Amino acid sequence: MMHLPRGDSLSFKEVDKKTEQVAKVLNGAGIKEGDRVSVHLSNKPETVIILLALQAVKAIAHCVNTRLSPEEIIYQVKDCSAALFISDSLELMNEVRSITKTLEVGHIFNSENHIFMSDNDQRSFEWDDTCSIMYTSGTTGKPKGVIQSYGNHYHSATASSIHLSIINQDCWYCAVPIFHVSGFSIIVRSLVTGCSFYLAETYNQEELCTLIQQEQVTIASVVTVMLLRFHEQWNLTTIPTTFKGFLVGGGPVPKWLLQELTEKGFNLFQTYGMTETCSQVVTLSPEKAATKIGSVGLPLLHTDIKIDKLDGSGVGEILVKGPTVTKGYWGLPEVTSNAFVNGWFKTGDIGYLDQDEFLYIKDRRSDLIISGGENIYPAEIESVLLAHPNVEQVAVIGVQSTEWGQSPSACIVLSDHVLDIRSVELDLIHLCHEKLASYKHPVHFHFMESLPMTSSMKIKRHELKALLESEQS
Amino acid sequence: MMHLPRGDSLSFKEVDKKTEQVAKVLNGAGIKEGDRVSVHLSNKPETVIILLALQAVKAIAHCVNTRLSPEEIIYQVKDCSAALFISDSLELMNEVRSITKTLEVGHIFNSENHIFMSDNDQRSFEWDDTCSIMYTSGTTGKPKGVIQSYGNHYHSATASSIHLSIINQDCWYCAVPIFHVSGFSIIVRSLVTGCSFYLAETYNQEELCTLIQQEQVTIASVVTVMLLRFHEQWNLTTIPTTFKGFLVGGGPVPKWLLQELTEKGFNLFQTYGMTETCSQVVTLSPEKAATKIGSVGLPLLHTDIKIDKLDGSGVGEILVKGPTVTKGYWGLPEVTSNAFVNGWFKTGDIGYLDQDEFLYIKDRRSDLIISGGENIYPAEIESVLLAHPNVEQVAVIGVQSTEWGQSPSACIVLSDHVLDIRSVELDLIHLCHEKLASYKHPVHFHFMESLPMTSSMKIKRHELKALLESEQS
Repeated sequence: MMHLPRGDSLSFKEVDKKTEQVAKVLNGAGIKEGDRVSVHLSNKPETVIILLALQAVKAIAHCVNTRLSPEEIIYQVKDCSAALFISDSLELMNEVRSITKTLEVGHIFNSENHIFMSDNDQRSFEWDDTCSIMYTSGTTGKPKGVIQSYGNHYHSATASSIHLSIINQDCWYCAVPIFHVSGFSIIVRSLVTGCSFYLAETYNQEELCTLIQQEQVTIASVVTVMLLRFHEQWNLTTIPTTFKGFLVGGGPVPKWLLQELTEKGFNLFQTYGMTETCSQVVTLSPEKAATKIGSVGLPLLHTDIKIDKLDGSGVGEILVKGPTVTKGYWGLPEVTSNAFVNGWFKTGDIGYLDQDEFLYIKDRRSDLIISGGENIYPAEIESVLLAHPNVEQVAVIGVQSTEWGQSPSACIVLSDHVLDIRSVELDLIHLCHEKLASYKHPVHFHFMESLPMTSSMKIKRHELKALLESEQS
Repeated sequence: MMHLPRGDSLSFKEVDKKTEQVAKVLNGAGIKEGDRVSVHLSNKPETVIILLALQAVKAIAHCVNTRLSPEEIIYQVKDCSAALFISDSLELMNEVRSITKTLEVGHIFNSENHIFMSDNDQRSFEWDDTCSIMYTSGTTGKPKGVIQSYGNHYHSATASSIHLSIINQDCWYCAVPIFHVSGFSIIVRSLVTGCSFYLAETYNQEELCTLIQQEQVTIASVVTVMLLRFHEQWNLTTIPTTFKGFLVGGGPVPKWLLQELTEKGFNLFQTYGMTETCSQVVTLSPEKAATKIGSVGLPLLHTDIKIDKLDGSGVGEILVKGPTVTKGYWGLPEVTSNAFVNGWFKTGDIGYLDQDEFLYIKDRRSDLIISGGENIYPAEIESVLLAHPNVEQVAVIGVQSTEWGQSPSACIVLSDHVLDIRSVELDLIHLCHEKLASYKHPVHFHFMESLPMTSSMKIKRHELKALLESEQS
């Protein structure tokens, strides 16, 4: 059952029927097994149906972050050579049309297309078959398509549901985007366990309060910024026993918030995961929250983690193994092979395990900035800024933000001859606007004489971060 | 948590600790990865620990039905060339000693053995690694060792738990033998979901009534004969809401019993499965029991079934595919390959699917007799009886039994010159006693002039069955 705002809902049977219809439209558009189809849509019921219809025709869903700039989107569409681009933005479709076929979402659902599909079309998949591709950037700054198989999704859903004691009576609140694995995985858990989900197009704390109060949702996936707003909104003294709690991913939760929500009686399942592991790697049960402060919990069923220790202290890079781990990056065999060591996926994040095997995150992979649940890789912004002829050196740093957790801030060294710094700044703002999703735009440009460097000529990012934060306070 | 009669219990941590100790003893006894170890023990906590310790040393558990005759047991031990035989029967150990090493269960738990085991011993398994072997006979009458992998057990446990909405708060009543997959799978579900189980050495309807009444168990695995006794015992008008119901396997449930228990307010999850599929293939939800009378339900997650239709009627052999299906039979590549068609496992059972894909069983595989939840293959008994020099022809038929569902009955044609039929009968009783588990002993010997045969010289078993049942009534 998919619940929608304003009391609407679609049963599994209705979803299935619509899925069959859309599958016929996709067939009619020439989509066949293995084709990549870009889905550039927000959290709408049509999006869910299109994603399922792609499975029905055994095509691969390329899930597009709708917040990205046209240039960023076009890069991905080209990279995975999508056979079709589905969107509700006519403007964007105009831009994409030169590289692939486009289909407007309204057209799909109004279509009278009734191409014959054999009744015997069994929807069965091998676990290794690719289901979806989601792009993520990295230290190099070049977005890479993470290949997610049916097995990845399936095993994540079963393990997550068991870890969180989800049964078919539950209803999952989904305001996190379904183009991200956090949202996509809610759909899969619903298919696997028979639980319902409530699909919210955008997050609205008032709506969530009402849904919890009226016992319409029993669990909610959120990022910290949503929790902050929810915390401000919630003013009841009792919580219905039907509400199991919040699954909080996408960066750490401030301790005061954790404490205050716990005091109000809310359960928080803190979690650590990534696109490459198809969502959760470890999750902290609320009953352990008090004794394991700062931990992100224990691995899910059949997921193994270990630390590639840097020294005797037990701290090191977090490695992950298990059936939810990606086969690799689309079209990048070398990058893929470098991402693994002896079958273990290298997360790039730094952490340690305590004596009870609980995981603690010390430092996010290299210089990752997490802003409102979105991952921002400085290299991506830096390469845009470096394109300006007057920029000599640049370092993008995540600075604390009360609302978003972190925001990107740019430290820039200009070439000597620049006279009008303000004019360059306006150029840079324009550049970012043109090339980057708005959540990636630096909140500040700091023009500096030089950047602090290590002896091996690496930028001392921690030093810059400390400097910016001291200026902030 | 493992709950035991008389209020005893063992936490996961305690089980783990004991498992480590027993693993050391097994190491000390020279057991190494891949070795088969026969476990000839009933439903005791020690048995659970030994089964888990075998996993810790990556040995393969050969689960021995304790009801079998020494000859039957020795056949299996030889067949899988077990490196060790663990039992609490000194008598049986004396008989087995000539073919392999033996270890008395008491010795294992009193052992002061403390062989060093590396702390880094990660218990990780590939899904294809063999976990256990359980023997089943077939139409040929020769017992075959069904290979069950970690993947088979794991996927059965996750799918079953999701199908039955089992969470870590549940407690599963286990009086079905853990040497059968029905009991073994309860242990695995507990490991996977964190639920508890109550281990009963023998079934006792009074105990089960009390446990349900006192909310100590929330679900119970039973066979029909247990349900019959439970039904006679239960005399309360209300059932605690904590009790989810009975998982009923091992043959059909009489309709009147189903109806009366449902009227009393009990949920019955009827199921169809086998050793080769590591327990459930399909399960009928209680809410569908009224509309889908006679059906055994829908497939578990990721299990596919199809009917190899015999004719236009839609009836045919039930084929199964999925990650719970065995890789095959121990040391029998040819038998294994014959058991599959295009990757589908041939159950030998006859059934059909309705328009909603619910499965109905028309006829058990060939001539299988199910007695008190135990599978009896006529061929096995027939070959014992045919060993008598005066027996010319024999057919063992399952006749209805109020208590056991079915019981084996033997139809025998003696050679012409036999004068003292009674003396032959005593010989046959003796032979069965010597060679067969007692539940396989025919309840009657019918001496006949001839057996009804088809034109292709096959015994008309259905005709014999009708004849015996008409005599019975």
